[in-house]
Amino acid sequence: MKLATYQDGSRDGQLLVVSRDLSQAHYANGIATRMQQVLDDWGFLSPQLDELYTQLNHGKLRHAFNFEPKQCMAPLPRAFQRVGGGAYLNQAELLAQNPLGEPLMQQGGSDDFLGPCEPARFAAEAMGLDFEAGLAVITGDVACGASAAQALEGVRLLMLVNDWRLRNLSPADLASRPACAFSPVAVTPDELGAAWSAGRVDLPLQAMWNGRKVGLCEAGPEMRFHFGQLMAHAAKTRRLRAGSIIASGAVSNKDASRGFCCIAEKRALEALESGQAKTEYMQFGDSIRIEMKGRDGLSLFGAIDQDVTSLAEAAVTGH
Amino acid sequence: MKLATYQDGSRDGQLLVVSRDLSQAHYANGIATRMQQVLDDWGFLSPQLDELYTQLNHGKLRHAFNFEPKQCMAPLPRAFQRVGGGAYLNQAELLAQNPLGEPLMQQGGSDDFLGPCEPARFAAEAMGLDFEAGLAVITGDVACGASAAQALEGVRLLMLVNDWRLRNLSPADLASRPACAFSPVAVTPDELGAAWSAGRVDLPLQAMWNGRKVGLCEAGPEMRFHFGQLMAHAAKTRRLRAGSIIASGAVSNKDASRGFCCIAEKRALEALESGQAKTEYMQFGDSIRIEMKGRDGLSLFGAIDQDVTSLAEAAVTGH
Repeated sequence: MKLATYQDGSRDGQLLVVSRDLSQAHYANGIATRMQQVLDDWGFLSPQLDELYTQLNHGKLRHAFNFEPKQCMAPLPRAFQRVGGGAYLNQAELLAQNPLGEPLMQQGGSDDFLGPCEPARFAAEAMGLDFEAGLAVITGDVACGASAAQALEGVRLLMLVNDWRLRNLSPADLASRPACAFSPVAVTPDELGAAWSAGRVDLPLQAMWNGRKVGLCEAGPEMRFHFGQLMAHAAKTRRLRAGSIIASGAVSNKDASRGFCCIAEKRALEALESGQAKTEYMQFGDSIRIEMKGRDGLSLFGAIDQDVTSLAEAAVTGH
Repeated sequence: MKLATYQDGSRDGQLLVVSRDLSQAHYANGIATRMQQVLDDWGFLSPQLDELYTQLNHGKLRHAFNFEPKQCMAPLPRAFQRVGGGAYLNQAELLAQNPLGEPLMQQGGSDDFLGPCEPARFAAEAMGLDFEAGLAVITGDVACGASAAQALEGVRLLMLVNDWRLRNLSPADLASRPACAFSPVAVTPDELGAAWSAGRVDLPLQAMWNGRKVGLCEAGPEMRFHFGQLMAHAAKTRRLRAGSIIASGAVSNKDASRGFCCIAEKRALEALESGQAKTEYMQFGDSIRIEMKGRDGLSLFGAIDQDVTSLAEAAVTGH
């Protein structure tokens, strides 16, 4: 099942069911209006949405319409928790000498997410504008002290995430973590077929910076801590409640020829090789596109496709 | 205006208006059922609640009932963001040599809060069980880049918070931050009268550990960063959306005779004086009561009154 949320002027938007090929959509109105509602009562509502999804895929819904990612908010436009990072031990982390036995996860803001095609607005380029392409799950209720296997049972939906970072601010400063963006649709694990394996997504994640492919990184094999482990770590001393978002952090591969899913990693590698980072962070006017395709070549989640904009300019144009 | 949320088996509970003296309550049914609803549409809904509050205080509501803090969830039972800490530069921070020009704030979990009288359940005493008594505000929408004065305009409600900590886990580890608890009621700033001054609450906060008063710390004069400054820092690179919780961190006074609002501070002081911390962290069976009284001697927010319990025991007794 694939779900999305359309902008309607409200804070939580309108829940949609989206067809497998992302071409068609249908409002979930008769079943639920908001994504959090579905997460709060998953056992009762998700089978009804799944039925609607089947009908949509079979072209049986008269009120279906063309799906338009530009109309999307984040699938869950605001969440009660977002926690993530540390699933991939990338070059930057190697540099910082953090080869821990447990994932280094951080709590992030979750009151204000960006839709997949919303511009990312920043006050100044000098802050060190960086994208971070990764995967995220939305959970159901997970008990305190759950094992990784138990936690994994609580995965409800998967999405792509672009976790914007301001690298020239102190990493410890919460100001360095502005609003992040999510893919147009969130999908149930069964949509990934065999690619959803042992808590990992065994497919390449593609990052295009200003139209140039900079990363095609395998998300599966080098995910050191799988989603069940990340969830279990987050639930070590507290339960997780339905609608919690657990993110992987930037996907990263040891083989540098696969490219990068965040500029900081590329820069760390350059510094390691030549003593100096050469690749600059993003500029106003830049774009970033993040997408994952299934083995059939079709986009699974739709693309995150954002322009980087000046906050001041955005205020002037009202954009 | 004073607001609370009663348990009703749902995740968001039932919104109540509570009388100024905390003796009577009335469901806000006809106006709003959930606290987040009010925060999402404050301009429209809060005047209606305020009118109900006036009628309740004048004894004019036939369906008013005795207010019972034990029936309370947190006033906002789950929130889209919680950020806090660092408003008071306490001994512990001095020890860690962190006298920064900006508050050291951390993002916390907000998917699962404890009601004021709910037991705090932990897996092991060896984790270093510590309370942290402080103040918190719930905000409306705050613009990205807002000044401290502008941010302060976004304060909607104030509460007491007990931000439980597990001191023997790594402070960097999110597992060290279990679910926190809030006071029975949240109050609008006008309820504090002259005690709400320049973004600070100029009243003493009382902490009773196993029935013994261990802290009576002035919350106002030594709050180095007031709530407007904390909010502005959190909104430095992103906007804050309605229902964000901004917490002060443990209240702390230089005058040690006023006692402490978290055990870690007492221990840091002992270590400073004698080279060794003497006060042990909390044990199963301990209790903590946190309350703030107005200049008239009446409780402003009601009391946080929690027992510390073993998670294993809680599972056995179903408690």
